[in-house]
Amino acid sequence: MSLKLYYDLMSQPSRALYILLKSVKCNFESKYVDLRKGEHYSEEYSKVNRLQKVPVIEHNGFVLTESVAIINYLSREGIIPNNLYPIESKSRALVQEYLEWQHLGLRLHCAMFFRVKYMDPILFGRSPSEEQIKGYEQRMLSALELLDTKWLGGRTEFIAGNSITVADLMAACELEQPRMAGFDPKEKFPNIAAWWPKVKQHFNPYYDEAHIILNKIVQKQQKITSKL
Amino acid sequence: MSLKLYYDLMSQPSRALYILLKSVKCNFESKYVDLRKGEHYSEEYSKVNRLQKVPVIEHNGFVLTESVAIINYLSREGIIPNNLYPIESKSRALVQEYLEWQHLGLRLHCAMFFRVKYMDPILFGRSPSEEQIKGYEQRMLSALELLDTKWLGGRTEFIAGNSITVADLMAACELEQPRMAGFDPKEKFPNIAAWWPKVKQHFNPYYDEAHIILNKIVQKQQKITSKL
Repeated sequence: MSLKLYYDLMSQPSRALYILLKSVKCNFESKYVDLRKGEHYSEEYSKVNRLQKVPVIEHNGFVLTESVAIINYLSREGIIPNNLYPIESKSRALVQEYLEWQHLGLRLHCAMFFRVKYMDPILFGRSPSEEQIKGYEQRMLSALELLDTKWLGGRTEFIAGNSITVADLMAACELEQPRMAGFDPKEKFPNIAAWWPKVKQHFNPYYDEAHIILNKIVQKQQKITSKL
Repeated sequence: MSLKLYYDLMSQPSRALYILLKSVKCNFESKYVDLRKGEHYSEEYSKVNRLQKVPVIEHNGFVLTESVAIINYLSREGIIPNNLYPIESKSRALVQEYLEWQHLGLRLHCAMFFRVKYMDPILFGRSPSEEQIKGYEQRMLSALELLDTKWLGGRTEFIAGNSITVADLMAACELEQPRMAGFDPKEKFPNIAAWWPKVKQHFNPYYDEAHIILNKIVQKQQKITSKL
């Protein structure tokens, strides 16, 4: 079996797949794609993924993009165990319900806040206005409110039931992103604050390992802000 | 077997599921939710779907939201046939790759253009500036360019291979949305223009049936524009 993972740990779904594969002791080949250097736009990488994004897997020569499609495929191929992604039809449906909701329900808003407030000034020297940041922040807060109250919020211990699944890992990795732009979701959302450490604990030491660079950026940003 | 479909034919994924279920001769119970009257925000509907969106299915008492999760579930339950959603692992992965890409890759941009240019003025009396519309239009054009060249574009006859699948139906229904705001994707994108009629033909008469109201709106808008 040959499995390659193309990723950058700055990307949320890349981290989720990296952690997942490490935690199930899958012996994959690391293919690092440096997003900050624009390596995903290179001719070489465009041959791997015509859509020029990470993560991507190559499994015995079969190339697949899109993290949720990758998780589904790896589950069918026996690489992701059933305890993290149940095969019983209704239980699996509830995990997939979250994974589908996440794209426009959570990911969009956390990623846009991160991009506009943190990435764009670095990459393009573009400074957003206070009003723009506020708009993105407001949409992110509404999304987090839904995660906190409609997906968590005492219904069940985890997102798709009382057992941890790939849905929790995907969500947790999304929530790390706005921390780099100075916003920590656990400070305002009690259900997220109670659930998040359980996800980290389950996937450690790999969760922390995948977030080393991200956490360094968070600390650096905190130092800059505290000096202002 | 009891299957209820909660839907409004103004919603793209609602139309896709409606067409899909009709075309496979599934005898479902229609539960119409009038989005323009805000029925999805009612207390009664919130008990069905706490996220207050359509489409939703209720299958022998099991409630599920999110169109892609619903398609996966109905496939496992034997309601969607394998020719429209292949079960061979790699073929299925390619369909899922598109279904996952679509959320942020296509749906977001077509839907936002439709919402800002057509819906918001009606619902909230909010008139967008020319510059705003242009921004949304530009992002939609970039998304359509990707569909036209990276997903279609002569690679294969359909989105995920040489057979029609649920991916094609989902994509086609998304492309109908901006038509109500005066933009027809087939006019600028040749591969979309060649592929779209094949999807309609396969799913007719249900495709046209699900788009009757939408097409009336398109015609009405064309009359208004031609008088300007």
